[in-house]
Amino acid sequence: MNIKTNSNFHNIKETYLFSEIASRVRKYSAENPEKTLIRLGIGDVTLPLASVVVSAMSDAAQEMGRGDTFRGYPPEAGYEFLRQAIADHYRDNNAEIKLSEIFVSDGAKSDLGNFVDILGANNVLIPDPVYPVYVDSNLMNGNNITLIKGSRENGFLPMPDAIGEKKAYVIYLCSPNNPTGAAYNGEQLAAWVNYTLETGSLIIYDSAYEAFITDELPHTIYEIEGADKCAVEICSFSKFAGFTGVRCGWTVVPEGLVSDDGTSLNKMWFRRQSTKFNGVSYPVQRAAEAALSKAGMHQCLANIDYYRRNAAMIADVLDRKGIFYTGGKNSPYIWLLCPDNMGSWEFFDKLLNEAQIVGTPGEGFGKAGEGYFRLTAFGTAENTAEACRRLESLL
Amino acid sequence: MNIKTNSNFHNIKETYLFSEIASRVRKYSAENPEKTLIRLGIGDVTLPLASVVVSAMSDAAQEMGRGDTFRGYPPEAGYEFLRQAIADHYRDNNAEIKLSEIFVSDGAKSDLGNFVDILGANNVLIPDPVYPVYVDSNLMNGNNITLIKGSRENGFLPMPDAIGEKKAYVIYLCSPNNPTGAAYNGEQLAAWVNYTLETGSLIIYDSAYEAFITDELPHTIYEIEGADKCAVEICSFSKFAGFTGVRCGWTVVPEGLVSDDGTSLNKMWFRRQSTKFNGVSYPVQRAAEAALSKAGMHQCLANIDYYRRNAAMIADVLDRKGIFYTGGKNSPYIWLLCPDNMGSWEFFDKLLNEAQIVGTPGEGFGKAGEGYFRLTAFGTAENTAEACRRLESLL
Repeated sequence: MNIKTNSNFHNIKETYLFSEIASRVRKYSAENPEKTLIRLGIGDVTLPLASVVVSAMSDAAQEMGRGDTFRGYPPEAGYEFLRQAIADHYRDNNAEIKLSEIFVSDGAKSDLGNFVDILGANNVLIPDPVYPVYVDSNLMNGNNITLIKGSRENGFLPMPDAIGEKKAYVIYLCSPNNPTGAAYNGEQLAAWVNYTLETGSLIIYDSAYEAFITDELPHTIYEIEGADKCAVEICSFSKFAGFTGVRCGWTVVPEGLVSDDGTSLNKMWFRRQSTKFNGVSYPVQRAAEAALSKAGMHQCLANIDYYRRNAAMIADVLDRKGIFYTGGKNSPYIWLLCPDNMGSWEFFDKLLNEAQIVGTPGEGFGKAGEGYFRLTAFGTAENTAEACRRLESLL
Repeated sequence: MNIKTNSNFHNIKETYLFSEIASRVRKYSAENPEKTLIRLGIGDVTLPLASVVVSAMSDAAQEMGRGDTFRGYPPEAGYEFLRQAIADHYRDNNAEIKLSEIFVSDGAKSDLGNFVDILGANNVLIPDPVYPVYVDSNLMNGNNITLIKGSRENGFLPMPDAIGEKKAYVIYLCSPNNPTGAAYNGEQLAAWVNYTLETGSLIIYDSAYEAFITDELPHTIYEIEGADKCAVEICSFSKFAGFTGVRCGWTVVPEGLVSDDGTSLNKMWFRRQSTKFNGVSYPVQRAAEAALSKAGMHQCLANIDYYRRNAAMIADVLDRKGIFYTGGKNSPYIWLLCPDNMGSWEFFDKLLNEAQIVGTPGEGFGKAGEGYFRLTAFGTAENTAEACRRLESLL
């Protein structure tokens, strides 16, 4: 064909992380068929959906089968019943968000990936290590990316004072962070909002893990004064309500966000979504609404507590062994410094061979992840407890 | 903010079509509260989902509520069970498509809009009138668009011989067409495939309305020899199975599609989807699978037949009155020449005021739609029959 493709795709690194993990695990299992592996590399939820969520989805499916209750195309930005439930959820976190500022979607990954569509060629600031979608979706658009390094020194919470040149950036923040589990406090987020307002930057705030917060930390960037003038927030039902297989999320684009040429980002995002998206499945929206109901919250938070107890078990072992880590609370992730100066893959092999535990090498999330390792709380309580016993004797 | 936005958005025309229709209808209703309006402007399905589809979705929701059958993140390109059902559907239409060439999505609109992400700056060829998403999503990417005119002379089926400069284009074809209802035959599609192969072009083929075909016409571009070397096909469960509110579609990207620099479009699309999309809701994929089952096809086609009978009723009136139209068969749309040289809006007002029928002015779908008018078959049989009686005495 004589058709030109998007040449920026050539700049995206192929990641062999998960295929390399799978290949090493396969080899080990073939050579050691009698050994029982415990997988603590899982980034996906494992507990079933709350019963009120299942009922809501199932009832909505039935509604779609009757002439008097059938629904066709949903509103592109989501049904009012769901946007209202999301706005109420923000109000519980002391943030006032208008329904017209909420855009329901099929998940945070779609919104994070698609949001670059409405932006021009900007300088982009992304923490390292981080969820790879931020980097890849900006590379696809040919944007200039500056990485800002997480480290033991800053607790994997890089701050604006580490920015080399003070200028306007599109800034990605993820708190609680994937993969480090570290979460910004109110003062730290206020410093980010101040930098952003001062330089005319834009924050894209990924709060997908907010339901895991237990400390006195902001659950949304909009708890910070001025954030409604400089920040978009992208959130998800995936981790809070176990919706990874159901697919629902949302993005808040405040009406106060106006670009250098006077364009409303809210209007642009609505235009993007109504041109390239046709809304979220009605039964899925009813399921999401149910997750935010009083009974839904109660059931979903019980699941979150289960994962939290797993995280705490792992953190306890590391505390006793004096190993540096972030996360373990406010997050389902534990991000640890590999002992004895081991490299990420070296520690991966040691854990696999000597304790039959599968985790994720930190360098899969960026260069600053070298020498670190991610364990997750999404296993069963029994497996996590057994893994902790093995870790205790190994470390 | 000092952040640059995508300036191409300024080139997209705001469309006031549907708000203008709503406003004129509101005014008329307020002034004539005793009159009963019949809406034949609906582009959305109205019959409820097939019972096997509802059961499948509801059962899948229940599965998600049990620990042993819960499912997390779906495969980005869709579950194998659904891709297999889609491949079998293609086989019924004499086309061999590999599972690795099928990408399940939340709908044709998303795929049509997002596919430009993997393309570079190409010349784009789009028929006029047409579904506005093709034009708008290419304008958002700053592409150079050439319109190719549909007319009474070519039966609203423009052919490659009307292309001014013979060169490589990204060519959008929609057959059966929205809004004209006109459908290409095998010979016509072969001419398009030949032009495309000869010039190194790429066809993006929108077959969302294929289930409405009754004549001996291709249901898929892959019935045409050589199409697997030059065409992407985007299809949907929306019209076939009434999924406008359920959200599921798919895109076929043959492995034989290779760009000027040797890049596989199939690999690029997989990379785009796995970076910016997290797959389709599991209950929705089970619902889609059920729609393609033997019982599902039977129930869905019964609904299609209902709409077909509505279309035939309207077409009969126009036949008797000697009014030129396209569609009315192979499509839920009837695209008619406004009588007495009336303009689209003039005829809109006449139909509203004198027959209390609401339709859609043709110019809403492009300049070549001026003087034409779209009626649809998605009303109830009773309302459509009453509308036909009113049309009969008006025209």
